[in-house]
Amino acid sequence: MDIVRLTADPLSLDAICREVGSDDCGAISTFSGTTRNSFDDREVVRLEYEAYEEMALSEMKKVCFSLREKWSVKHIAIYHRLGLVPVGESSVVIAVSSCHRRDSLEAVAFAIEQLKARVPIWKREVYGSGDAQWKQNAECHWTQHAKGS
Amino acid sequence: MDIVRLTADPLSLDAICREVGSDDCGAISTFSGTTRNSFDDREVVRLEYEAYEEMALSEMKKVCFSLREKWSVKHIAIYHRLGLVPVGESSVVIAVSSCHRRDSLEAVAFAIEQLKARVPIWKREVYGSGDAQWKQNAECHWTQHAKGS
Repeated sequence: MDIVRLTADPLSLDAICREVGSDDCGAISTFSGTTRNSFDDREVVRLEYEAYEEMALSEMKKVCFSLREKWSVKHIAIYHRLGLVPVGESSVVIAVSSCHRRDSLEAVAFAIEQLKARVPIWKREVYGSGDAQWKQNAECHWTQHAKGS
Repeated sequence: MDIVRLTADPLSLDAICREVGSDDCGAISTFSGTTRNSFDDREVVRLEYEAYEEMALSEMKKVCFSLREKWSVKHIAIYHRLGLVPVGESSVVIAVSSCHRRDSLEAVAFAIEQLKARVPIWKREVYGSGDAQWKQNAECHWTQHAKGS
């Protein structure tokens, strides 16, 4: 089962892992990307995310597909939050279950690299000083010229 | 901060990630080892864990130490459940926070390998047929001759 979601709600690892867990699996690996309180020595108070939703979901499904070509995994969940994400909260969660630990560990590391490279999602950094800046995902080929900063 | 715990309580990823999360970190990676419903084609209904507790905690701290020698990570949590763990529930959770994703991803993969190799914890597989078997951790040098099956 491949679960890909864009949501405005806070992300719960326990809830997502209940979705990917399976009684015949011995391993669940996860990665959470969280909002940091600074960028280049500037205080960040929150991030806001926007996506080309249809294209983002399509690319997230392709990440699942390419992951299954390489590893034997049971279920995959990729959740990305949209809108406001306060400091310390997760903007992205990837969770993968597998019978044996090596598969899910390697698959999660691969998935976050692929997500950064392929999925058209932007973030707006809001600073303590009150101003803000839209940022393209520097690693994503979709976004490199699509939205100014 | 290095958190190592042996507990009879169910393990919550959300609770453990709140402990390792940090406002200056952008990444949390986790690994959960869960009870599978079969082993070698036999139905498993639950596992029971026992540890040399003092030695297990000491070795878990050493895993944290050796991990910090290799990667730049913020907080580490290693939780192992003792006693009965039903099918589908986690017996072990490792969670690591880091500023950048690569560190916590690699550190978690390393930590579960080290944990399997170093920490003296046994499991008793209870089968659907009613019988049971104590198993040493096949990867652990402490346990190889310490407890019969």
